[in-house]
Amino acid sequence: MSGEVQGKGGVQWVKRDAVHPMSTAAGVEMRPMFGEGFLTCWVKLEPGAGVPQHSHVHEQVGVVTAGSLSVSAEGETRTLSEGEAYLVGPHVPHEATAGPNGAELVETFVPVREDFRELWERSRPS
Amino acid sequence: MSGEVQGKGGVQWVKRDAVHPMSTAAGVEMRPMFGEGFLTCWVKLEPGAGVPQHSHVHEQVGVVTAGSLSVSAEGETRTLSEGEAYLVGPHVPHEATAGPNGAELVETFVPVREDFRELWERSRPS
Repeated sequence: MSGEVQGKGGVQWVKRDAVHPMSTAAGVEMRPMFGEGFLTCWVKLEPGAGVPQHSHVHEQVGVVTAGSLSVSAEGETRTLSEGEAYLVGPHVPHEATAGPNGAELVETFVPVREDFRELWERSRPS
Repeated sequence: MSGEVQGKGGVQWVKRDAVHPMSTAAGVEMRPMFGEGFLTCWVKLEPGAGVPQHSHVHEQVGVVTAGSLSVSAEGETRTLSEGEAYLVGPHVPHEATAGPNGAELVETFVPVREDFRELWERSRPS
């Protein structure tokens, strides 16, 4: 699938720093891994960077691993830090903004976000 | 679904320390979050703890967030640390053992592992 993904058959071994990044919004860098039925990304947001309200058919879970992220969904805003997560169902509008030290997350989308696969392919260094 | 999961409708807010753990092997502690189509877990392994070779119909991705983990699949063994991940497809035998400082991961299974849901329910503190 990619020279960056080392593996054969049914196993993939992935190093974050070997995956070229894509940017889905200003200050937001995602490094994806593709399964058959899911997309998991290392996500890094610069301080104050964020993603405006949006929704998609995919379920999503975001697990904060560093920094802080304010997430809004269904009329509620919570600021999450390491050891906290949010899950949003299909078609649920949500938005997020990183705190003053930025944020790092592991995010998963089910099924694969094909728009992200296309963006990632277009982001490949030439 | 659970008093530990705070949310309504299409969003769940989850704090790791508020999710009761389940143990899938000696020295292996998992704190799960359930979507409709996936199960994501905070996983913590004590030094040297591991999971013997097994396989399942679910796709799996494990993202190491701390410590180190030696994973074997398809005749290859790799020791992964923070910023590294493995993906295994359905029915691919795999095993894993934590390094001398233990390991922490964010793991996702697609679809939901119903055996883990049942174990988690049985593990609920009375």
